[in-house]
Amino acid sequence: MKLKKILHGGDYNPEQWLDYPEILEKDITYFQLAKINTVTIGMFSWSTLEPTEGVFQFEWLEEIINRLYAAGISTILASPSGARPKWMADRYPEVLRVREDRTRLLFGGRHNHCYTSPIYREKIEIINRVLGERFGHHPAVILWHISNEYGGDCHCPLCQEAFQAWLKNRYGCIEHVNRSWNTTFWSHTYQSFEQIESPSSIGETLVHGLTLDWKRFVTDQTVDFCAWEIKALKASGSAIPTTTNLMYDFVGLNYDKMASIIDIVSWDTYPVWHKREDIKVAWDNGMQHDYMRCLKHKPFLLMESCPSSTNWQAVSRLKRPGLLKAQSWQAVAHGSESVLYFQMRQSRGSSEKFHGAVVDHYGGCDTRVFREIAQLGGELENLPGILGSETRAKVALIYDIENRWAVEGAQGPRNEGLYYHRAAVKSYQALRKQGINVDVISMVQDLSKYKLVVAPMLYMFRAGIEEKIRTFVKGGGHFVLGYWSGIVDENDSCFLGGTPYKLMDVFGLRRTETDGLYAHESNSIHGVADLGDASVYKTDTLCDLLDLNTAEALYCYGEEFYQGTAAVTKNRFGSGVAYYIGSDAMQAFYDDFYGELLHAADVEPLVTGEIPKGIAINSREGADGMYLFLQNYNNEVVDISALELTGTLMQGENKNRLDAYETLIIKK
Amino acid sequence: MKLKKILHGGDYNPEQWLDYPEILEKDITYFQLAKINTVTIGMFSWSTLEPTEGVFQFEWLEEIINRLYAAGISTILASPSGARPKWMADRYPEVLRVREDRTRLLFGGRHNHCYTSPIYREKIEIINRVLGERFGHHPAVILWHISNEYGGDCHCPLCQEAFQAWLKNRYGCIEHVNRSWNTTFWSHTYQSFEQIESPSSIGETLVHGLTLDWKRFVTDQTVDFCAWEIKALKASGSAIPTTTNLMYDFVGLNYDKMASIIDIVSWDTYPVWHKREDIKVAWDNGMQHDYMRCLKHKPFLLMESCPSSTNWQAVSRLKRPGLLKAQSWQAVAHGSESVLYFQMRQSRGSSEKFHGAVVDHYGGCDTRVFREIAQLGGELENLPGILGSETRAKVALIYDIENRWAVEGAQGPRNEGLYYHRAAVKSYQALRKQGINVDVISMVQDLSKYKLVVAPMLYMFRAGIEEKIRTFVKGGGHFVLGYWSGIVDENDSCFLGGTPYKLMDVFGLRRTETDGLYAHESNSIHGVADLGDASVYKTDTLCDLLDLNTAEALYCYGEEFYQGTAAVTKNRFGSGVAYYIGSDAMQAFYDDFYGELLHAADVEPLVTGEIPKGIAINSREGADGMYLFLQNYNNEVVDISALELTGTLMQGENKNRLDAYETLIIKK
Amino acid sequence: MKLKKILHGGDYNPEQWLDYPEILEKDITYFQLAKINTVTIGMFSWSTLEPTEGVFQFEWLEEIINRLYAAGISTILASPSGARPKWMADRYPEVLRVREDRTRLLFGGRHNHCYTSPIYREKIEIINRVLGERFGHHPAVILWHISNEYGGDCHCPLCQEAFQAWLKNRYGCIEHVNRSWNTTFWSHTYQSFEQIESPSSIGETLVHGLTLDWKRFVTDQTVDFCAWEIKALKASGSAIPTTTNLMYDFVGLNYDKMASIIDIVSWDTYPVWHKREDIKVAWDNGMQHDYMRCLKHKPFLLMESCPSSTNWQAVSRLKRPGLLKAQSWQAVAHGSESVLYFQMRQSRGSSEKFHGAVVDHYGGCDTRVFREIAQLGGELENLPGILGSETRAKVALIYDIENRWAVEGAQGPRNEGLYYHRAAVKSYQALRKQGINVDVISMVQDLSKYKLVVAPMLYMFRAGIEEKIRTFVKGGGHFVLGYWSGIVDENDSCFLGGTPYKLMDVFGLRRTETDGLYAHESNSIHGVADLGDASVYKTDTLCDLLDLNTAEALYCYGEEFYQGTAAVTKNRFGSGVAYYIGSDAMQAFYDDFYGELLHAADVEPLVTGEIPKGIAINSREGADGMYLFLQNYNNEVVDISALELTGTLMQGENKNRLDAYETLIIKK
Repeated sequence: MKLKKILHGGDYNPEQWLDYPEILEKDITYFQLAKINTVTIGMFSWSTLEPTEGVFQFEWLEEIINRLYAAGISTILASPSGARPKWMADRYPEVLRVREDRTRLLFGGRHNHCYTSPIYREKIEIINRVLGERFGHHPAVILWHISNEYGGDCHCPLCQEAFQAWLKNRYGCIEHVNRSWNTTFWSHTYQSFEQIESPSSIGETLVHGLTLDWKRFVTDQTVDFCAWEIKALKASGSAIPTTTNLMYDFVGLNYDKMASIIDIVSWDTYPVWHKREDIKVAWDNGMQHDYMRCLKHKPFLLMESCPSSTNWQAVSRLKRPGLLKAQSWQAVAHGSESVLYFQMRQSRGSSEKFHGAVVDHYGGCDTRVFREIAQLGGELENLPGILGSETRAKVALIYDIENRWAVEGAQGPRNEGLYYHRAAVKSYQALRKQGINVDVISMVQDLSKYKLVVAPMLYMFRAGIEEKIRTFVKGGGHFVLGYWSGIVDENDSCFLGGTPYKLMDVFGLRRTETDGLYAHESNSIHGVADLGDASVYKTDTLCDLLDLNTAEALYCYGEEFYQGTAAVTKNRFGSGVAYYIGSDAMQAFYDDFYGELLHAADVEPLVTGEIPKGIAINSREGADGMYLFLQNYNNEVVDISALELTGTLMQGENKNRLDAYETLIIKK
Repeated sequence: MKLKKILHGGDYNPEQWLDYPEILEKDITYFQLAKINTVTIGMFSWSTLEPTEGVFQFEWLEEIINRLYAAGISTILASPSGARPKWMADRYPEVLRVREDRTRLLFGGRHNHCYTSPIYREKIEIINRVLGERFGHHPAVILWHISNEYGGDCHCPLCQEAFQAWLKNRYGCIEHVNRSWNTTFWSHTYQSFEQIESPSSIGETLVHGLTLDWKRFVTDQTVDFCAWEIKALKASGSAIPTTTNLMYDFVGLNYDKMASIIDIVSWDTYPVWHKREDIKVAWDNGMQHDYMRCLKHKPFLLMESCPSSTNWQAVSRLKRPGLLKAQSWQAVAHGSESVLYFQMRQSRGSSEKFHGAVVDHYGGCDTRVFREIAQLGGELENLPGILGSETRAKVALIYDIENRWAVEGAQGPRNEGLYYHRAAVKSYQALRKQGINVDVISMVQDLSKYKLVVAPMLYMFRAGIEEKIRTFVKGGGHFVLGYWSGIVDENDSCFLGGTPYKLMDVFGLRRTETDGLYAHESNSIHGVADLGDASVYKTDTLCDLLDLNTAEALYCYGEEFYQGTAAVTKNRFGSGVAYYIGSDAMQAFYDDFYGELLHAADVEPLVTGEIPKGIAINSREGADGMYLFLQNYNNEVVDISALELTGTLMQGENKNRLDAYETLIIKK
Repeated sequence: MKLKKILHGGDYNPEQWLDYPEILEKDITYFQLAKINTVTIGMFSWSTLEPTEGVFQFEWLEEIINRLYAAGISTILASPSGARPKWMADRYPEVLRVREDRTRLLFGGRHNHCYTSPIYREKIEIINRVLGERFGHHPAVILWHISNEYGGDCHCPLCQEAFQAWLKNRYGCIEHVNRSWNTTFWSHTYQSFEQIESPSSIGETLVHGLTLDWKRFVTDQTVDFCAWEIKALKASGSAIPTTTNLMYDFVGLNYDKMASIIDIVSWDTYPVWHKREDIKVAWDNGMQHDYMRCLKHKPFLLMESCPSSTNWQAVSRLKRPGLLKAQSWQAVAHGSESVLYFQMRQSRGSSEKFHGAVVDHYGGCDTRVFREIAQLGGELENLPGILGSETRAKVALIYDIENRWAVEGAQGPRNEGLYYHRAAVKSYQALRKQGINVDVISMVQDLSKYKLVVAPMLYMFRAGIEEKIRTFVKGGGHFVLGYWSGIVDENDSCFLGGTPYKLMDVFGLRRTETDGLYAHESNSIHGVADLGDASVYKTDTLCDLLDLNTAEALYCYGEEFYQGTAAVTKNRFGSGVAYYIGSDAMQAFYDDFYGELLHAADVEPLVTGEIPKGIAINSREGADGMYLFLQNYNNEVVDISALELTGTLMQGENKNRLDAYETLIIKK
C-alpha cells in the first residue's frame, strides 16, 4: 500500500444524515478546511445498504464516495458485518449469539452474531460480493475495512460442533485431549469429541486446557470468518488491500493470526489521558503502538482515535490543548501512516451521541477541537517523507497473548492479581526512557536480530521459546526473564523436573517456591554489597525463591524467612548473559537496571544527553533519512538543551525547549 | 376530601391475627389510648379475602371495620392487588412477571404481576367490584387505597404487544420511530412496529429513545391498570375518594400521570435518620414532601412512616426521643393532612417481622415508642384548624422525572455519576435555609406564578420548557439554569446548533464543551473581583465551558486550561434575569448565591432574623390564619430568640428556644 | 476405630499417574522417607473406575493398594461420588443439579449432582457395592471415606417433590405450615403442599420459615444420600468404619445430623495464615477443631490440610518454617488422631495444579516442604500414647448452625452484618486465653456437665434450650447470654410477650429495643463505679436496651439517648448466676470479663502462671496420663519460664522457652 499523504480523516456515517443534504454538503467544506484526505464509510450501514432481504440500495453510498473524491477525499470502505439488520435476526435467529451460559441473545448492540452460522456467512458473502463488484475498482476506494473491531464468542450448537471438529483436528484422538488437559482430575475424562462442551459458568470453568483451547478456537473461527469476508469482497478481482481495526490490549483474540490474513494492520486507540500522569499513559499507549507495528514489522494505520473525549469511559475528561496533536504524532512516531478519528460528525442519538467528533452537535468549525485538527492537518501534509519509513530496534519485549490467557486463567499463586500487563509496561517504559526504540513481540517471532530481549512473567513456554532463548543467549544475546516463568507447556500443563523449564542451566538456578504477597504487604531487594551496589527497592505481589547453581546474585531479599537469598541474578552462558528477576520490583528498579543493561548489551540511545522526565523519543528511518521524534507529555515547558540534537527541524521551532504537549521532528 | 381530624393511625393487618381474638381486642384499646382515628386495611389480604378462586370471605373484614368504627376509628380500605394468591399464579402463570432478561418469575415476593395480563385484570376487577359493593357506601370507609406502591415492569409477550401498540399510537409510522431514535446508528432500523422489543440486558440497552419510551409506556400501563382498579371499585356507585401510595424519589414511574387519576396524593416516607446530620435528611425528605404536594398543589397524606426503625435498611438505627414527632410534624408542615404509620402491630413472621410498629412483639403499651405516639396523637387532635390549609410559594425548583430518566440513561460525560438528585437537593436546601416555602415541580407545570425558578441539570427540554423559560424571564422572572442543560429533546436526541437550545440569547451564552472530572479531582470558581466578590468555592463533577455573548461572568474557573473563563453568569433579558451555573459547586456556594438571589428577586422570608443552623421553617395558610412551623433537627437545644416570632403558640412552650427535635407551631 | 499410629499421609491420586510407572514407584520411596503410613485414594476416580457404564476397572486400584500395603502404608478408600463421569451426565441429565434460579447445570466442576435423583442413587449404589465387595475386607483398607465434602443443593422437580413430602411429614397439614411460616403476610397462604416451591431468587426469598425448612431438608436429603452410600459399601458385610470429610465453618449443612450416621468425624482445614496475626488464625481454627470434636465428643481425624500454600485462596502466601508443624500439632492437641494432607503429589493440570503437595512438580525430596513433613512424620511416630486420649472441658460455647441460618436469614436489625461467627470466636478465644479446654456445642447437646456455658447471639431458641438454661442456672451453673437472643422460635417466628423468651426471670430483665450501629459508629460500656470497676470498653454493631428487674447492672452505656442504662448485667437465679451481655464489645472486654468469670465459676486453668500472648494451651487425657500441649504462634522466641510446667517433655527441648511456631508436649 503506497500512500502519497499521511492519511488524515476518520469514520464517517453519512447514512445518518441522508435527510439533511445541507449537512452533507457542509461536511465536505469542513473536511477541506481541516485537510481531511480520507474517510471511512460503511461500518454499521447494513440496514441502509440492504433495508430488506436481498434488496440493495447503494446509490447514496456511491454518490457520497464520488462527491468526496471530487473534493480530493479518498474512502476506506467497510464491510457491514459489525451489526446485522433486524430483519435478519428476526428471520434467522441462528445469526444471534449464544452466551457462555447458553442464553441466546436478542437483537441489540453490535457484534452480536455467530461467526459459524452458515446463514450469517451466506448473507455477508452476498453483500460483500456486491460491494466488491460495485466499488472494488473504484479509484476513490483505497482500502477495504473488514467489519469492525472483531471480538466476542458464541456458544451455540453450531459453534459447539465447530469446536469439536477443531479439537479433533488438533488432537486426532480423544486420549490425546484427556492427557493434554489432565482430565483425570475430578473425573472429567472424555470418551469422545462429541462430549466436549465449551467453557461455561453453568458447566466447566476450571479445566484450564479446555479454556485455553476454546480461546484458540475463537481466534481461528474469527480469522476464518474474516478471511471469508475478504474472499467475497475480492471475488470480483478487486486489488484493493485489506485491513481490520484491532483494539487496545485486547485479550479476546490472538492478533498474530488476525494480522496474517490482512494486508495492513490498523488499530483504534482511546487512551485515558489526564487520569494519571500523561507520560505514563503515553508509555502504555506507545507499547500498544509497537505491539501493533510488530505484528507485521511494518508501518500500520491509526484507524480510530478520539478528537476530544469519548462518551463511554467512566469520566469524559476534555483533552488539554495540544494533547490531540501529541496523541496523533505519537502514532506517527511509532510507525503509523495515518491519523484517523472516530468520528467525523457526532451522531444525534443513540449510544455514542456524546462521543467526541471533528464536527460536533453545534455544527460549527469555530471550535477548539476543530481548530486543533485543522492545524494538525496542515502539519501532516508537510511531512510526506515519513511515509514508508521503518522503525529499527535492537531491543525486544516479549508480550504474548497466549501466555496471558494462561497466566490469567490458571489458579494460583495470587488470584487477586498477577498483573502481566503491568509487568510488561514496567519493562517497556524503563527501556523507552533510555531513548531507544523497542519491538513488542510474541513468542512465535524471531529473536536473532536483537541484542537484548526482555520477557516478564513468561509463565507458558510455547513455540519452542526455550530453545530460542538458549540459542539466543548462547550466541551472545542478553536475555532477561521475569518471575513466574517457564512453568507450563502450551496446554497449561505443568512441567515436571524443575523450572524455568529446560533453562535451569542457561539461568544457572532453579525456582523452588513462589510466595504470593497480600496487597498490604511488600518485601525489598538489596544490591549485593560485594558488587558495590547498595541500592534498595521495594517489591511486591510475587517473590520467587531461587536455588542458585552457577548464577550469581545481584540483589537479595530483605525480609521474610527467605531474607538474604537471591532475588535478581546473572548467569553467563555461552557468549551471552541470562538475567533472572525474581520479584515484582517498583518501577525505579527497572529504570536503573535496564539503564545498566543497555550499556552492557551495547545498545545505543537515539540521542545523547540526559533525557528529562516526561519526554518520549522515537525514530523512523526512510529512504531520505532518519526522522527523530521528541514529545513532551508534561503540561509545562521543558528545557531539552542538554540533548545533542543535530539535523533539520521539520516540525516545531526550537531544539532547546518543548512546550507542553509539543512534538519536535528532526530529520537527519 | 373534607376531614375533621388530622388522620392518625396506619397500616393494620388483622388477617394475621384472626387466631388471636384477644389481640384484636387489645388493639382497639391501644388505638384509643394513642388517639388513633384511622387504620388502613386490606393491602395484601387477597388470599384471605378470596382463599380459593371465586370464593370470597369478607365477614372478618366487615366485622373488624365495624368494631373499629364503633370505637371511633375510620378505615382506609385497600384493593388487594399488591400481591396475588398462590392459586392464581399456579392456574394462570401469565399473571407472573417476566424480567427484562425474559425470565418468567415464579410466585413470590409482592408486586410480581403483569399489569397487561387480561386474566390478572379480570381477577382484580371481580374482587374490587365485590369490595366496592360491600364497602363502597360504608360510613367507616373514608378512602380507597388502590393497590400498594405500584412499581416494576413486565416484559412478557403481552406487554411486548402492548408496547408495540403504544408506540404505534405515539408515532404513527415506523419511519417516525427510526428518525426519533436515530436507529440508523449501528444498523438498528426497524421495518415494522412488530419488530420492536423492550430493552433488555440480553438485547438492546443502548438505544436511548427506546429506553425512554419503554419507561413512558410502563407509566402509562401502570396508570391504566390503576384506573381499571378504580373503575371496578366505583362500579357500584361508591363516592369514596381514591389514592395510591407513592414512594420516595421513585424513578420507576412518572407520578404526574399517576396523580392525575387519583383524588388525593399520598406517599410513604422512610428517611435514614442519624446516618448523617439530621438536618440534611430533613431537607432531602422535605423536598419529597414538596414534590408530592405539588403533584396536585393541594394537601396530601402521609400514608406510611416508621414509628421506630425499619428492618430493611442497611442498619436499623433507633430513632432518638422526639424524632418520631419531628418527622410527623414535618409532614404536616409541608402539607400533609395525616400522620400514618407502617404498621400498627408488628407481624410475627416473614420478611417484615422486625419492621417497627406502634405495638411490637412484646405487646405492651408501656414502651418508649408507644408513649411518643400517644403523646403525638394528643397534639394532633389539638390542631384541626390546619386541615385544608395551603402552602404558598414564590419560588420553584424544577425536578423532572423524564429528565432524570434521560440524564441517567445517556452515556457521557460522566458515567461514574452525574448526581441529578443531589444537584436538586443542593438547590432545594439552599433555598429552604433562607426560610421560605419552595414548590418542586416538573416541566409540564406553569411557571408564571413564581418570582424565581431554579432548574439544575435540565438536560432534556420537553413540554415546551424553552418557550416557558423565555416567556418567564422576558416577563420579569428570575431563572437559574444549571450546567449540562438544554442538550436533548424529548427523545434524547441532541439539539443541533448550540445549547442551551433556543435559549442562547436568553442566557447570553453558548456552552461549548463540558469537562468531566474524576472523583479525586476538583476545580474552583472565583468571584469576579471587579464586581467586588472575592469568594472562592470548590467545584467538581462537571465543568461547562462557556462562550459568553451578552452575559456577564459572576464567577470564573480557577484551574485547568479554561482557568479565568466564565463559570457562573448573569444575563438581563426582557424584564427579567437569567443566571447560568456552569459547574457543580459545593453547598456553600448555593447557600450564598441563593441568599443574594432571593433578595434580588424580591422574595420575602417567612421570618425575619438570622435562622440558626439545623432549623427548618414552613408555613401553611388556611381560612383561620397562617400556621408557622419551626423545627429543630439538632440533637440539642437551640436559641431562636433572634427570630421575630409574632402570633399564638399552638404547639410548644417557648418562642425563644427549641429543644432537640422539637417543633413549634405559631398561628398568625 | 483403634489405631496404632497417629495417621500421617493424605490424599493421593495415582490414577493421574498411571502412564508414569516410575513416578508411582518413586512415590512409595518418598512416602517411606517421610514416615507416611496412610493415604486416601479414590476421591474423584469414578471415570477411571467405571470408564463406560457398567464396565469396572479396579485392577490399577487394587495393585496400588497392595503395593502401598507391602510398604507399610494403609489406605483410606473413598467412594467416588464427589464427581460423576461425563457419560452419566450425557445419558442421564437428571443427575445434574438445578440451581435455585431453576437453571439445569451442564457437566463440569464437582459436586454437581442431585442427591434425590433415583438414577444417581442407583449408579452410586452399584459402584459402592462393587467397591465394598472387592475391598471391604482388605486388610490394607482402614476406613471408608464417603464421597468428598458434601455440600450444595438442587432445585430440580425431583427435589421439589421430595421437599413437599418432607414438609408433609414435618407439618402434617398445610394449615400448620401457614401458621408456622406466617404466610398470611403478603398473601402467601398455601392451599396444598404441592404448591410449595423451594426458595429462589426468581421466586420466594423472604418467607424465612420456608428458607429455614429448605436448609433443613437439604441436610436431611444429603444425610440420607450419605446413608445410602454407606449401606451399599457395607452390603457385602464390610466392617470397616466410615467417615466423610467436613468443612471449616460450613453453613450448608447441619453437621450434627451428618455426624450421627458416620463412625468417626473428619474434617479439612485450610487456615489463611500470615494474613493477620497467626494467633488469631489459630484461635479461629482451634474453635473449629473443638466444634468437630464435640460432634461426637470423641477424637476425630484431620483429613486434609495443606503442606505449603493452597492455590484457591486470594493470595498464596508460603507457610513460614515451622508453621506446617504447628498447624499439624494443633489438630492433635485438639483431639485429632491424624495429620493428613491434601495432597501427596501435585497434579500436572487442571484446577488444583498449583495446590501445595508433599511432592511438587519438581519431583524431588530435597525441598523445604518435604523436609519439614519428614521431620514431623518422625515426631508423630514417637507419640502413639496420645491415641485415644480425651479432651475434658468444664466450659462450653454454644455455636449453633440452625441459629446461624436464622440469624443471617432474618432481615434486621443490621443487614450490613450481625457477625455471629465473629461473636463466637471472640468468646472462644477469650476463654482459651485463660488456658482452658473449651467444648463447642449446638443447642441439642447436654449442658449439665459444664460449670460455665456461654451463648453469644442465641437469636433462635430451639431444642428446648430455654428449659435447659433455666435448669442449668437453677442448678448452680454460670450462664452468659449475648445480645439479640431469645427472639424467635425454630420457625423464625417471633416470640410474643417479651424477650429473652421465657428467661426474663432467669436473667432478671427484658430487652426492650435493639439499636443497630453503622460501621462508622460505636458506643462504649462503663464499669459500674459502685462495684469498683472503672473500666471502659468500646462496643459496636448492636446495642440492646434493657429494662432491669432483678438483675444488677455491671456495665452501662456511655453514649446515645440510652447513656447510663444497663449494658451488661448479672442475676442470681436458683443456685447459679445468669449474665447478659447486651452489646458487641471489643475483644479486651471479653478477655477481662471471662477471666473474672472463670474464677467465679471455679474453673481451673491447665497451667498456672501468666500465659504470654500468642501461646495456645491444650490437654488430652489418656490411659497413661495427661498430655499438655503448648504452642507458640509468634514468629519469634517466647519466654515461658513463668509457667509452672511439671511432667516429662515428650516433644521439644526446653520448658523455659518456645521457638517461633514451636510445640511442646509434656506428659503428666
